[in-house]
Amino acid sequence: MGDLKVIGKRIPKKDAPLKTTGAAVYIQDMKVPGMLYGRILYSKYPHAKIVKIDTSKAEALPGVKVVLTGADVPNNFKFGFIKDNPPLKTGKVLSTRDEVAAVAAISPEIAEEALDLINIEYEELPGIFDPLEAMKEGAAMVHEEFKSNVLKMPWKFVAGDVEAAKKASAFIAEDTFSTQWVTHCCLGTSGCIASLDINNNLTMYSNTQIPSLAQNDFLEALKVFGFKNKRVRVIQCVIGGGFGSKLDTYAYEYIAILLALKARKPVKIVFSREDEFLATSPRQCTITKISQGCDKDGRLTFREMEMILDNGAYTSWGATTPSVMMVPISSLYKVPNIFYRAKCVYTNNTYSQAFRGYGNPQATFAIESNLDQLAEKAGIDPLEIRRINANEPGEVTPQNFKITSCGMKECIDEVVNRLDWKNKSGKHNGRGVGMASLIHVGGAARVYKSDGCGTIIKVDDNGKVDVITGSSEIGQGSETIISQIVAEVLGMSIDDINVINNDTDVCPWDVGAHASRTTFVAGNSALGAAQKIKTQIMEIAAKNLGESPEALEMKDGIIFSVKDKEKNISLGKVLRKVHYTLGGRMLVAEHFYDPPNENFDQNFKGNLSVAYAYGAHGVEVEVDKETGQVKILNYIAAHDVGKALNPMLLEGQIYGGGLMGIGYALGEKMIWDKGYLKNGTFLDYKMPTVQDAPPVQAVIVETDEQAGPFGAKGIGEPGLVPTAPAIANAIYDAVGVRIKDLPITPEKVLAALKEKEKGNP
Amino acid sequence: MGDLKVIGKRIPKKDAPLKTTGAAVYIQDMKVPGMLYGRILYSKYPHAKIVKIDTSKAEALPGVKVVLTGADVPNNFKFGFIKDNPPLKTGKVLSTRDEVAAVAAISPEIAEEALDLINIEYEELPGIFDPLEAMKEGAAMVHEEFKSNVLKMPWKFVAGDVEAAKKASAFIAEDTFSTQWVTHCCLGTSGCIASLDINNNLTMYSNTQIPSLAQNDFLEALKVFGFKNKRVRVIQCVIGGGFGSKLDTYAYEYIAILLALKARKPVKIVFSREDEFLATSPRQCTITKISQGCDKDGRLTFREMEMILDNGAYTSWGATTPSVMMVPISSLYKVPNIFYRAKCVYTNNTYSQAFRGYGNPQATFAIESNLDQLAEKAGIDPLEIRRINANEPGEVTPQNFKITSCGMKECIDEVVNRLDWKNKSGKHNGRGVGMASLIHVGGAARVYKSDGCGTIIKVDDNGKVDVITGSSEIGQGSETIISQIVAEVLGMSIDDINVINNDTDVCPWDVGAHASRTTFVAGNSALGAAQKIKTQIMEIAAKNLGESPEALEMKDGIIFSVKDKEKNISLGKVLRKVHYTLGGRMLVAEHFYDPPNENFDQNFKGNLSVAYAYGAHGVEVEVDKETGQVKILNYIAAHDVGKALNPMLLEGQIYGGGLMGIGYALGEKMIWDKGYLKNGTFLDYKMPTVQDAPPVQAVIVETDEQAGPFGAKGIGEPGLVPTAPAIANAIYDAVGVRIKDLPITPEKVLAALKEKEKGNP
Repeated sequence: MGDLKVIGKRIPKKDAPLKTTGAAVYIQDMKVPGMLYGRILYSKYPHAKIVKIDTSKAEALPGVKVVLTGADVPNNFKFGFIKDNPPLKTGKVLSTRDEVAAVAAISPEIAEEALDLINIEYEELPGIFDPLEAMKEGAAMVHEEFKSNVLKMPWKFVAGDVEAAKKASAFIAEDTFSTQWVTHCCLGTSGCIASLDINNNLTMYSNTQIPSLAQNDFLEALKVFGFKNKRVRVIQCVIGGGFGSKLDTYAYEYIAILLALKARKPVKIVFSREDEFLATSPRQCTITKISQGCDKDGRLTFREMEMILDNGAYTSWGATTPSVMMVPISSLYKVPNIFYRAKCVYTNNTYSQAFRGYGNPQATFAIESNLDQLAEKAGIDPLEIRRINANEPGEVTPQNFKITSCGMKECIDEVVNRLDWKNKSGKHNGRGVGMASLIHVGGAARVYKSDGCGTIIKVDDNGKVDVITGSSEIGQGSETIISQIVAEVLGMSIDDINVINNDTDVCPWDVGAHASRTTFVAGNSALGAAQKIKTQIMEIAAKNLGESPEALEMKDGIIFSVKDKEKNISLGKVLRKVHYTLGGRMLVAEHFYDPPNENFDQNFKGNLSVAYAYGAHGVEVEVDKETGQVKILNYIAAHDVGKALNPMLLEGQIYGGGLMGIGYALGEKMIWDKGYLKNGTFLDYKMPTVQDAPPVQAVIVETDEQAGPFGAKGIGEPGLVPTAPAIANAIYDAVGVRIKDLPITPEKVLAALKEKEKGNP
Repeated sequence: MGDLKVIGKRIPKKDAPLKTTGAAVYIQDMKVPGMLYGRILYSKYPHAKIVKIDTSKAEALPGVKVVLTGADVPNNFKFGFIKDNPPLKTGKVLSTRDEVAAVAAISPEIAEEALDLINIEYEELPGIFDPLEAMKEGAAMVHEEFKSNVLKMPWKFVAGDVEAAKKASAFIAEDTFSTQWVTHCCLGTSGCIASLDINNNLTMYSNTQIPSLAQNDFLEALKVFGFKNKRVRVIQCVIGGGFGSKLDTYAYEYIAILLALKARKPVKIVFSREDEFLATSPRQCTITKISQGCDKDGRLTFREMEMILDNGAYTSWGATTPSVMMVPISSLYKVPNIFYRAKCVYTNNTYSQAFRGYGNPQATFAIESNLDQLAEKAGIDPLEIRRINANEPGEVTPQNFKITSCGMKECIDEVVNRLDWKNKSGKHNGRGVGMASLIHVGGAARVYKSDGCGTIIKVDDNGKVDVITGSSEIGQGSETIISQIVAEVLGMSIDDINVINNDTDVCPWDVGAHASRTTFVAGNSALGAAQKIKTQIMEIAAKNLGESPEALEMKDGIIFSVKDKEKNISLGKVLRKVHYTLGGRMLVAEHFYDPPNENFDQNFKGNLSVAYAYGAHGVEVEVDKETGQVKILNYIAAHDVGKALNPMLLEGQIYGGGLMGIGYALGEKMIWDKGYLKNGTFLDYKMPTVQDAPPVQAVIVETDEQAGPFGAKGIGEPGLVPTAPAIANAIYDAVGVRIKDLPITPEKVLAALKEKEKGNP
């Protein structure tokens, strides 16, 4: 690894020119011949009976081709994680994002106009918008048929004996923390084009993050619609941000299919920004009761957490985030005794989905805020309690995670040194420092039956390489990383590598762009395929040069004998020799990489990931006591990344994650007021922009993960995991108030300061 | 082969629904975001000096983005077989299809309007439109720099000693035959979209028949334009007919690239029907002097042919048709002594290209017409002279063709029986019968350094198969045939097979859709890949069932033990078992098939094809002596196809070829009058339509070619090869006049009848 030419270099993203020049074709730009435009009518009420729908005026509007209501959905089709969500609702609506009718017309304007002509008579019903209310005895049922508002999901993890540990603890800190609804804010809104051939095989242009799983979902839908044994092709347009929002299929996609089936024309549905806010699935709000204890030396003795998650009205992957919340709960720092239980509760709010970190930010906010509380109780520097309990290589955690590489301590040290912790902490003078650590899956996560990714590589006569990968480029830079890996193996420039990653017809299977897994899994898959190609090349070159393959090396398109560099042949010549000959061939290789990680057992134990990512964030803040305004003076985000395959892209992930985390900590919140979204525009929803970006230092700690491609671990999600607690801890260090409810708005800080002045805790 | 389930069945074309419902996306339908529309201005004169071009008015027209002339073509770039053709002309124009300027605008209408605003001052020059004139001493040079109007190409084949054979012959017949310009009449006109990314990598949407070679051509062009080391991706839209017309790249494609380079936008150029007639490259006209001799028993002793081909003003593959003309000249019937020479001559006419049969129809028209003349001289039934000299399996022809399967005699017998030859021939009563045979390459043709085709197959979790092939679907049905081959091997339905064949980024290399090679080469390639997949499946199933792979069979998605059918497992289960497991994988296989045929040596000897296709056509005509009108009463097209993989498609090729041959024989002709095309529309150019179609019987003779996929040989071209001489021979049999100049119009027949009445020969 000493002589890397492409790996480890600061190479700009391959797709950057496309995107910066406006040449990238997003779903918004995409047209197919004969296409109609679909629009969806959402419910007027968060909870209501649909008494009557009159679509006759809409149908009569010239240019309208199809109007659909719930009555048109065949065979009671429902989608989602537990199939509780019909794409168009009948009988009752359960949230203001409920789809009640849809239109396909020859222009988006006509479709929009038609929506206004659909007349719906509702009978409004009282709604439940608070999961605590929903859990109460006698509460009305969101889904009557389920007999409970609490989802039947077994989110419970136990290790050791928490009750005994509590008794043995020298110090215990206990508190309750809560987090808000936040949305992904993808700059490219959601959309799709559903196109059916005469045999009802479906081509779906989509910006999904899960082409292979979406393909299965659509196949399943076609089956329920009455079309068995069909083919589905998913083609991804350029994706303008994913962040987990596109990890599930949505009602609009099934509606597009239904419209297309009826219209016998392709139908495009693209979300407006307002649709995107309203009708994609955000990070759910949580309420967490936590207590942690330590012995007199500060060694953690137990961690007990009970979480309540607002599931919203329907069920998507948001309901499974407790599985990843378990990662920090069981394994962040060495904690021998763990009790964790989570409940996902139906309400008449929007429903939740995956979002970068997948529950980890919510859990880590509670853990790391509470850890500072415990440190204070124990009279230990927050830094020291973290050092004492830090994870280490070789550890096996209570959830049976096998920790291979682990740079947690190094990350903490980087934070401490770069923040000048010793001089700055504990001053309580309006300025303060805080820190928080993180653990996350860093070597994929076996949440599905396969965690694999396939790659096919072909090489043309000029030595140009096509890499057909199952993985998805969602802006994270996978195209560039895969190009680098292949280029490194084959001694080429990344410009010689073309990555094809957007078409299930040609791309091998991949479980999706989630769990920070793409560099690790797709990277290992590409690495394997590239090595097979290299073996082929070397064997042919060896024959040509009269050498053994082992005696050869390849660099800059030349294959040469290590001993005698005069003995060489160009790659192009090798390729043409083997092609332009009787019985010739082109070089093609394929490799499927499925990581050796484990699905959880019934007790949620198992080595979920082949490797784990660690990090520590530290922040210095200044709090304006007059306004409650928090200013970030310095921000250190230190991450154990295994090996930085491309420091520029990696830093981009850290900056992006960090800023997203800062938004989560300090300002972002979807305001759902009795089921109505009150701030569903970028004017009202305050996502930090580059102008709000504080000085973030991304610090790369390399630990050389043996199982990773060239030593790399995942870095897609970790950047936002410890941000909020680090900031909350710094605010506490600055002004002595602890905000336990995200986001930490000036109003909350000010109110807490006032309470503090009054002598209230 | 006894138990074939899919092969040999009359399965409709997979793409038929797409095409019949209008859902197929042709280049005409294709749009890419930001696209401009290009139009080309052609020369006003067939030969002229360009004195001045004023594009200022065109440039000033609102909506016009780029105007180009020859001065804008970088580095004197020229394209074509001998690179004699600049995409935009400077200095001189050499034909009325010469491109002199081009425009890109925001709409096709504005582009068209802009062409009218380009002001060109010409100085007209005298042109040469007759190759015989062009060959005369002192003729003006079409290309001054070449110092001769005769192309420097070594078209000469000699076997044995023709002079000696002449002396030894009992009978000799000698005559001169000529053929006309005909064009392909593709219903989908030509077109492309050239799209360059910011790094000047090119994506070309095209309806080419040669994606891999076109890719090379465009790469080469980019290089000359100053962009080295670039990538080119060729994406084929649905192709509305090829017939050889798209076997080369055209000026319009380079112009689209140049416009796109300058506009920094994608540029689409689509031909109008008038453009298509004017500016695609037709089958050239030929003049053939032929003599053949036989001994007293009718055994052929020699064949001597001299051909002159009108090459037109520039050089495309039309100039290489003599290489395929050699196939019948050297090897149709057993002829021990051969002399052949061909000259391609520059004129100021349009320039010629490949066209179904690639010279074979022109050569066979002379050979088979002249053979009837010889039979008459020798007093032998035309049927008998063919039987006596017919080719046979095991033969090695003078050109070193190794004849494996050969059903020529069977084809002749089919014609004889179905025409009732014995009773109908020789009556000279206004009705007559005629026949002609054919030989053509039937197992590919090694005209390039590689004659190969690659295939990648991947199988999804539900047992659906994607076949990524290098071969092109140009309406001939390759998608269906490849699906059948793969389905047969894998025991599936063709609906389970999806063929991807239109994108050089994902499709392996293929030399192109020419030489009737696709079923043979792409079929063998797909067969090899499918067999590899089957091996993988059987190995996994064997492990699951505790059997050896050899003990298993696969049918209808079930793999079972031959001995105990209860012991079985579904294909889907096998696939999911191997995928959804730790260290899982998807099944992918690839195979590159390069046929064991030979490039010609310097003397044009070599086993060009792995197998040869044979056939015989017989026709009964009625000639109206008052009008000269020829009516086809019965038409038998008997073809040795090796094995009919899909008789329905195969008959389609024979019907289509036959009708194209009938058009060639009886009516079609591009009228070039002193360089001006006089009938460049379907109103004036009389292509026979389905309403003109005579009763053609397609007769399939199976000979089981061992080297072919499931025994198949090529059939794309043969259908039109012997049509014209068969009809000419029948007319002679009917009314005793021989038309030696195609097409055989009523006027020519009438004139000949009048001459005959006058007693002239």
